[in-house]
Amino acid sequence: MGRERQMALVGFMQASNVSVYAGSWRHPDSSPDFLTAGYYQHIGQVLERGCFDMLFFDDRLAMPGIYGNSVAETVRSGARCVKLDVSLTLAMIAAATQRIGLGATYSTTYYAPFHVARLFATLDHMSGGRAAWNIVTSVNDAEAQNYGFDQHLGHDERYAQADEFLEVVTGLWDTWEDGAILWDQANARFADPDKVHELHYKGQWYSSRGPLTVPRGPQGRPVLVQAGSSGQGKAFAARWADVVFTNTPELGQARANYAEQKAQFRAAGRNPDHVAILPLTYLVVAETEEEATAEEQYLLDLPEPMASLVLLSEATNLDFSGFELDEPVPQSFLDSATGMHGYIEGIKQYMGGRTPTLRDLALQRATLRQALRFVGTPTQVADQMQEWFEADACDGFVVAATSLPGTFETVTELLVPELQRRGLFRTEYDGTTLRSHLGLPRPS
Amino acid sequence: MGRERQMALVGFMQASNVSVYAGSWRHPDSSPDFLTAGYYQHIGQVLERGCFDMLFFDDRLAMPGIYGNSVAETVRSGARCVKLDVSLTLAMIAAATQRIGLGATYSTTYYAPFHVARLFATLDHMSGGRAAWNIVTSVNDAEAQNYGFDQHLGHDERYAQADEFLEVVTGLWDTWEDGAILWDQANARFADPDKVHELHYKGQWYSSRGPLTVPRGPQGRPVLVQAGSSGQGKAFAARWADVVFTNTPELGQARANYAEQKAQFRAAGRNPDHVAILPLTYLVVAETEEEATAEEQYLLDLPEPMASLVLLSEATNLDFSGFELDEPVPQSFLDSATGMHGYIEGIKQYMGGRTPTLRDLALQRATLRQALRFVGTPTQVADQMQEWFEADACDGFVVAATSLPGTFETVTELLVPELQRRGLFRTEYDGTTLRSHLGLPRPS
Repeated sequence: MGRERQMALVGFMQASNVSVYAGSWRHPDSSPDFLTAGYYQHIGQVLERGCFDMLFFDDRLAMPGIYGNSVAETVRSGARCVKLDVSLTLAMIAAATQRIGLGATYSTTYYAPFHVARLFATLDHMSGGRAAWNIVTSVNDAEAQNYGFDQHLGHDERYAQADEFLEVVTGLWDTWEDGAILWDQANARFADPDKVHELHYKGQWYSSRGPLTVPRGPQGRPVLVQAGSSGQGKAFAARWADVVFTNTPELGQARANYAEQKAQFRAAGRNPDHVAILPLTYLVVAETEEEATAEEQYLLDLPEPMASLVLLSEATNLDFSGFELDEPVPQSFLDSATGMHGYIEGIKQYMGGRTPTLRDLALQRATLRQALRFVGTPTQVADQMQEWFEADACDGFVVAATSLPGTFETVTELLVPELQRRGLFRTEYDGTTLRSHLGLPRPS
Repeated sequence: MGRERQMALVGFMQASNVSVYAGSWRHPDSSPDFLTAGYYQHIGQVLERGCFDMLFFDDRLAMPGIYGNSVAETVRSGARCVKLDVSLTLAMIAAATQRIGLGATYSTTYYAPFHVARLFATLDHMSGGRAAWNIVTSVNDAEAQNYGFDQHLGHDERYAQADEFLEVVTGLWDTWEDGAILWDQANARFADPDKVHELHYKGQWYSSRGPLTVPRGPQGRPVLVQAGSSGQGKAFAARWADVVFTNTPELGQARANYAEQKAQFRAAGRNPDHVAILPLTYLVVAETEEEATAEEQYLLDLPEPMASLVLLSEATNLDFSGFELDEPVPQSFLDSATGMHGYIEGIKQYMGGRTPTLRDLALQRATLRQALRFVGTPTQVADQMQEWFEADACDGFVVAATSLPGTFETVTELLVPELQRRGLFRTEYDGTTLRSHLGLPRPS
């Protein structure tokens, strides 16, 4: 990442009542103000005080509604039933912060490339160069049903379509050259027509004439984030991503994945230093080891199985409502899952060949067990992060929250100073753009 | 509008380098900072100081590219070649203001109903009840080409489709009852499943399962704005609109239109006091009559014909590049226009049966001549506004800008105090929501 190598830290959350950890809304350090701008602005300010590279929002375009073909348990258990528009949420935070990067998930399945290109280019201008787009291909039948389709697209078709989508979006971002605007009031020359180009893209799924209606932004192109962990997902990342989110809870697996993905970047003709590979991580930090361990146990116990199950159904398009909690779920049933491939593989690995009961499955999804976790005092947690970072298992971490704003306040207050003391993390922002924080060049 | 009747004032602009008046960017009171959040936030704050009901953004999803089948003259002349994402722009302003309503155009042609419903519901929460959506059916071939279609839809089909779109959006807004959220952390009851409903809408063009992922907002439903002036447009407004934007530069015509539209509301079973009919208006206000008249002449001369022509081509889907400026444009050519019907009618009325030259047409579009205009001292302009308001020609005015932030600063500083002195306009906001400013009830 240029300079002396320092880790990247990304705050991960949803514009929702709850974090990726299903128990978060019930935690005493969570605030009920999740429908207000101030809630998100406070979180942005906390993470900016902690010099985080980016605050990043996941998204889905539906309430979980696969389990029991109903949203009732979703609503009752608070399992991500609220999902606000993420672009508005980012803008509210942009208005209340100066430096922290701001990223959001947008699906290539349910939005038009022109819309996505315009949105993130606008955010890049209005935030002074802090915009990032997380590219996802949608996999959930409930989302499809909100948008008037019966089922989502197949896996292979989704990625081929996503490649085209990216060609259009990045093409539109490049339709204005730097310095195109003249603002010559006297001679009625607003911009130089030789520096603004039509795109005339025609593909199998998308076509767009262009140019974009937004001049080239501070970052040249907003930062591209991707999280696919299937073979196709990784190939897609090697072509497009500046930041890769991973979910690799075991160190050996993470090192192998890191080496593989960096090699894929090199093979794609890209500089592997210009991509940040960041695993999803729970950080349970407290003043004493006893407190941290007690908090970990509390967090392991807090999520109720039902909240996990509605999310498990959402991620796999499998309706688990036909099974009792302590009934075994046959492999043949799990094999019919059609959601995120990498995610389903993660569950199988977690089960290690056993035939799981429904309760086993619920204990994995949307709990602390779904991702890497470091528990302890600031020194202990920093030790583990340092080990991973220096073992070339990652370039930093995506920090998942177990309470909001609780987790981010604790991490900023207790852990970040320890990482800074070790020289592993910045003590202030060098530059003003997200690309600068991440050590990524501005595309020409 | 309830209470003693006072006028509504709406600031009208684009998230662009230029206002609806094509010369605005070249005016000395215009700022080149139109790509920054601060530019829009300043304008919002100025209008809020002036107690405006709402700041409202028009939008298009393409650069004008019909004229000469090229964007070159659009880029050179600055004829709305920049159009930022309006939702982000609104959010940046929402973060910097407390009371003023915030509206934006979203097309029923190029967005999904679920997206639009979620967007405006989110804005309503995050702004504390200040969101408004201007419903448009897109008519421009350049927009279609950016979204991968060759041509826009036909006129009749557009409105039938728009009716369905509104049924989905308003249906989704009503999927959460008021008071659905419980936030009962101890008993793991986030919300009451009996108060959150699936929609299961299935129409000819749209279907959506729902529920929306956003609880019911402060306004119940965001305010709906509409500007169609064709017969179908007016019928659509009578069914859906809370605010109707008109373009009726002549008093008699405005009174007739006002009476007709109020009657249509009554016939549709709605309370005609619960719709605000507001004509587009240029206000040229100065300390002295001489200054105002000189400014008017300056504004009449400033727009170059080419900037008007690219916008005229955009609005009609007619390529005027085959005509010389002083060449007559035959009626048969104008009759092949496929853009906004009401707009094309307005041009014909303006020409009054003469065969126009291209220069004649250019003098109308995107200049002061396209809309109602009041010129003079604060007293003189207030007299004219009062005359219109008290003659039942309107419920207030949509104020178009001739420079930005110039126009809104002048109006707030010079004109608003005079309107307030007469009791025609509020001296402070009574309530906190846009519905409250407009005297509209909260839908149950």
